[in-house]
Amino acid sequence: MQPLQYLKDQEADSLAQLKEFVRFPSVSAQPEYRQDMKRCAQWVAGYLSGLGITSKICETGGHQCVYGEYSVSDKVPTVLIYGHYDVQPPDPLDLWKTPPFEPVEKDGWLFGRGADDDKGQIFAHIKAVEAYLKTTGSLPVNVKFLIEGEEEVSSNNLELFVKNNAGMLRADVALISDGSQYGIDMPSISYGLRGIATIEVKVIGPDRDLHSGRFGGSVANPINMLCRLISRLHDENGHIAIDGFYDDVYTAGEWEKQQFAMLPFDEKEYLATTASPGLWGEKGFSTLQRVWTRPTLDCNGITGGYQGEGTKTIIPSWASAKISMRLVPDMDPADICTKAEAFLRKICPDSVTLVVSRRDGCKPVQVPVESPWLDAASSAIEQTFGRKPFFKKEGGSIPIVETFKSVLGIDTLLFGLGQPDSNCHSPNERFLIRDFHRGSRMSVVLMEKLAGVRGAR
Amino acid sequence: MQPLQYLKDQEADSLAQLKEFVRFPSVSAQPEYRQDMKRCAQWVAGYLSGLGITSKICETGGHQCVYGEYSVSDKVPTVLIYGHYDVQPPDPLDLWKTPPFEPVEKDGWLFGRGADDDKGQIFAHIKAVEAYLKTTGSLPVNVKFLIEGEEEVSSNNLELFVKNNAGMLRADVALISDGSQYGIDMPSISYGLRGIATIEVKVIGPDRDLHSGRFGGSVANPINMLCRLISRLHDENGHIAIDGFYDDVYTAGEWEKQQFAMLPFDEKEYLATTASPGLWGEKGFSTLQRVWTRPTLDCNGITGGYQGEGTKTIIPSWASAKISMRLVPDMDPADICTKAEAFLRKICPDSVTLVVSRRDGCKPVQVPVESPWLDAASSAIEQTFGRKPFFKKEGGSIPIVETFKSVLGIDTLLFGLGQPDSNCHSPNERFLIRDFHRGSRMSVVLMEKLAGVRGAR
Repeated sequence: MQPLQYLKDQEADSLAQLKEFVRFPSVSAQPEYRQDMKRCAQWVAGYLSGLGITSKICETGGHQCVYGEYSVSDKVPTVLIYGHYDVQPPDPLDLWKTPPFEPVEKDGWLFGRGADDDKGQIFAHIKAVEAYLKTTGSLPVNVKFLIEGEEEVSSNNLELFVKNNAGMLRADVALISDGSQYGIDMPSISYGLRGIATIEVKVIGPDRDLHSGRFGGSVANPINMLCRLISRLHDENGHIAIDGFYDDVYTAGEWEKQQFAMLPFDEKEYLATTASPGLWGEKGFSTLQRVWTRPTLDCNGITGGYQGEGTKTIIPSWASAKISMRLVPDMDPADICTKAEAFLRKICPDSVTLVVSRRDGCKPVQVPVESPWLDAASSAIEQTFGRKPFFKKEGGSIPIVETFKSVLGIDTLLFGLGQPDSNCHSPNERFLIRDFHRGSRMSVVLMEKLAGVRGAR
Repeated sequence: MQPLQYLKDQEADSLAQLKEFVRFPSVSAQPEYRQDMKRCAQWVAGYLSGLGITSKICETGGHQCVYGEYSVSDKVPTVLIYGHYDVQPPDPLDLWKTPPFEPVEKDGWLFGRGADDDKGQIFAHIKAVEAYLKTTGSLPVNVKFLIEGEEEVSSNNLELFVKNNAGMLRADVALISDGSQYGIDMPSISYGLRGIATIEVKVIGPDRDLHSGRFGGSVANPINMLCRLISRLHDENGHIAIDGFYDDVYTAGEWEKQQFAMLPFDEKEYLATTASPGLWGEKGFSTLQRVWTRPTLDCNGITGGYQGEGTKTIIPSWASAKISMRLVPDMDPADICTKAEAFLRKICPDSVTLVVSRRDGCKPVQVPVESPWLDAASSAIEQTFGRKPFFKKEGGSIPIVETFKSVLGIDTLLFGLGQPDSNCHSPNERFLIRDFHRGSRMSVVLMEKLAGVRGAR
């Protein structure tokens, strides 16, 4: 097959081009990289144009996104390939063994910020499209690229962009390659994501900080009260105690149980990854079940009173906590926020004032596993990696998947070409060079398989 | 009596001198006032010297303190009068109706930072000594002044100063005038102070912040765990649940119960003072009992995870809280810290690491109520104010009282010439001018009464 041969011949060039991509310090979170962000977007758009893909840089309320399109025919499916060119800040810099934006090959890995997340992954798919265009002058499917610049800062402008450009982005299936395999030589497909609902809880007592000697014992302390509220959100067995919280939680079916049973899992290794003193969770569930199939409630931050050196003996005026809840099918973020607030109001004593703010959330995602798209993906992986993919889920949330579903009406194929120990978001981020090349080849095979899916649209 | 007449004649001058004292912005907390602190100490020492009192400015590890001494005879008691010339920062400045360091008379009050706390109060006693020296050329008792410059910043260097100068400071009784009366025309003597013990509790989970999606549900969240620990420090009735916490708590005697019953107390008025949504406290005790006779446990600050705008969905690496416990006789700060730590260790799960730091503390103080010193003070107040003093306690702690007891072996008479609504530590601090003059006259009578106490050394 010509495109695969092309990729084989091109390996050195491909890697050199990826390095060029990684050299842009396209850090979306920090304003000082604004010009680098623009240059990086131009590089991506320029690369696509150079392949003959109609591409443009699109303005959003924040960083630009790159759109590219190559249409072949109305008769073949259209694949929307999503990725992002922005990267996490490189801090803490002193923990990097090589400079974050000077990519270096070592022991089969390419080190550099963004090598895995997501430059290496999205570029693997770009190279697959290139392989077709350079060898056959066409593509088996219509391809649309949506490569944004705000994934690392919550994709705040992406939902609106998709809504405003729903016609342009119309497709039959979406493809996101922004995660990890289950392990080395353990390719996988994710078929589910948890959703998320967040609230901020503020407990207000006196209208100013009070002297803890003069008033201590006579008025409710907002920190102590907040702690009491938070402690009651879980019971002794790690179940969440909010009334009705589990009402809409799905029950894992036989197929899912079988998939989980097939996944090698080492509790000790997992514990080491977390670097926690011990594992903890909802009684009656395994670790994998806990992170993939069960809802959670975590405080992400808490603040109140005096936090400097030494002591300041006050009863603080207020205390607040940020809480996120991960949701599983068929929980609804708005419904969960309502239930959480109602429960907090029920248990909060009159001696303090409770203020609950609800923030953004997104629904959980369950990609249908009995789908020709997923069959195509599975088959492309098997053909390239020499083994069937593991079917796994993700504990995290990717809001755009829900947006693709609700706005464009399409499901998303969730690939991960990285590794669990790729150090994404951490110093010494890396991407297995072998996976970069295999990923491109898999993408070539995938496009051919997707072309064969009937009944699209 | 000549000294009382002197004070009467001098009232206008005394007030003018107090204003001069208040004009120094002697803010100990802020380095930009360092020179003003020195000038204020010089003014105090100069004023004492001008009266014929041997005085000097003493260096400490921090701000200077002023020492003054006037000895009459070995045959009369020696009174150590403690006060402080430093004041709280005036912030927030925009809430002051008149400039904080430009004292202004209005409606019978003198407004200005330090007018009450503690310049007006200590100066009332200086004027009493002046009244004797200017009229009789002597004093009924030996007097020693210790006027420090770090009371508003925890008196960190005072204990060491007292220890290093125990010989110089040797006295029969100490006198502190740095609090408030029970109300307008309700002079009082405090016969008890709560002690304090403080701990800092840190709960550590993973060695870095973890992604709350990827790991949420499988590892203990340090904030949630800290909240759980803190919530268990009290039971449902507001009792502190630490094992053995109440072991050494004294039981109020009949005399104390009678004193409390005599104190007018309006719950609504008290609630308004706190500006809290409601009162709260240990079941089975009145508000006054809660703040004066019962131990407490308050979180003074809590911190952990993300505290900025918006959301950051992490499981934080750690969370910590500062906790202060107010103690009543005969509780011991070290013992209480040990019990608190043991209890926390008992209830803390293995899935997190617990670090408990113990900080400074001081013992509770109970001034013997059947004492000739207290009788003298009571009688001086009755003679000056026309009514017997209320005997009250303080919910706060004054560590120097414990130091005077343990290092110098003497009890302290705790006066308050201010009012509960003097706005100490707040904008628009004020001192009732009538109380300033009455305070001086009371001090004159007091010295005469103290001279009559037999059996002192």
